[in-house]
Amino acid sequence: MSQHTVTAFEEDMSFLAHKIAEMGGHAERMMEQSVRALVENDLQLARRVVTDDLVLDEALRLIDDKSVLVIAQRQPVASDLREVFAAIRISTDLERIGDLAKNIAKRVEAINEGKHGVRLVRGIEHLCELTLAQLKEVLDAYGTLSTDKLSMIRDRDDEIDAMYTSLFRELLTYMMEDPRNITTCTHLLFCAKNIERIGDHATNIAEAVYYMVEGDRMPPYRPKDDKSHKISVEAGEGQ
Amino acid sequence: MSQHTVTAFEEDMSFLAHKIAEMGGHAERMMEQSVRALVENDLQLARRVVTDDLVLDEALRLIDDKSVLVIAQRQPVASDLREVFAAIRISTDLERIGDLAKNIAKRVEAINEGKHGVRLVRGIEHLCELTLAQLKEVLDAYGTLSTDKLSMIRDRDDEIDAMYTSLFRELLTYMMEDPRNITTCTHLLFCAKNIERIGDHATNIAEAVYYMVEGDRMPPYRPKDDKSHKISVEAGEGQ
Repeated sequence: MSQHTVTAFEEDMSFLAHKIAEMGGHAERMMEQSVRALVENDLQLARRVVTDDLVLDEALRLIDDKSVLVIAQRQPVASDLREVFAAIRISTDLERIGDLAKNIAKRVEAINEGKHGVRLVRGIEHLCELTLAQLKEVLDAYGTLSTDKLSMIRDRDDEIDAMYTSLFRELLTYMMEDPRNITTCTHLLFCAKNIERIGDHATNIAEAVYYMVEGDRMPPYRPKDDKSHKISVEAGEGQ
Repeated sequence: MSQHTVTAFEEDMSFLAHKIAEMGGHAERMMEQSVRALVENDLQLARRVVTDDLVLDEALRLIDDKSVLVIAQRQPVASDLREVFAAIRISTDLERIGDLAKNIAKRVEAINEGKHGVRLVRGIEHLCELTLAQLKEVLDAYGTLSTDKLSMIRDRDDEIDAMYTSLFRELLTYMMEDPRNITTCTHLLFCAKNIERIGDHATNIAEAVYYMVEGDRMPPYRPKDDKSHKISVEAGEGQ
């Protein structure tokens, strides 16, 4: 292979990595802004997040097309192939994170600020902080091609799931206390679920990075600490 | 290229297509069974669905590994590459569908049969029928490499979203009528959301099939008819 061809390939791989980093930053911003819009009842910010999602859809298409070209034209060897595959999988997860943030932003209008107290919002903010930290950490691991923090990231997902489960319970009790809370709390429930799912995507990205770097998989078993599906709170309890 | 090499490549592509078809059938079954377990309050069936999800996780890994090998060893041309890429994307959507079905199954235990009437269940069954039809249709399109039904599938997703939005409203009103309905209805809400998301994945698969066959994308704009984020029902209305 000539010097020129190697350089072109490296450029292509560089482009992919750069695009992923860009998408990552954008997804982080969308997530952080959607929750801020929720907490501050900022409709304008919420609407901006919704339109911002198009950027990620476009980036996904670009990465798709570029990946096909790179493989067809450069015929990369196995380790480089894993990098291209990682770009495909990670870009999908980032696009989904954008969708979830957009869904949070879309609910801001329906969640009337007069209907929920600071308590509810604190729980969602906290969930968001933890999840955002996960996302930043895993994107950093991708950027530096390092795997040392990846199992910690995956384990910390249990913390997010557990926090989501508590929030779920808490929201149920507010709904049972006062029917006027039901609509707001239902939307908040979905917002919390979206954040928990963003956490899952961050974990998927961690696994994709591991595979890309090590050429092998992290051990398959991931205990799920989201026990919300078991919750069966009776009205009248705890009041 | 010798006769032998072409045959090996065709075998590999055949394997991938077969694995996707298998995953597809399995995902359909998991979805149909999780909703049946819900409707019939069948705990045993629910537990079977939960363990069944491992099959899809395993299939996803197999397709991943095979895709890397096919590309590294056979160096496929652009149209074959699109087929491999489609396998990667579709397998991801099918694995997510399995996760969503598993999540429905996990909620069956918390949804006590005495707490909800036939009405609620009818809505979820109907949503499920429509979504299952979508999934079968799109997997058929993949298997026959045909694109003629794909935009109909994508448009029909609006019907699913609209049905989900109605169900969301209906469940909110049951929750406001009687606090004892809240837990059950919340779980049903998540089940309905999961089915609506399965519909979204079916639409993703339609787009992946189109790209694979046509080498180009379906027009990017997909109107979302899920208006549930706008719902703001006040307690006391409609009673």
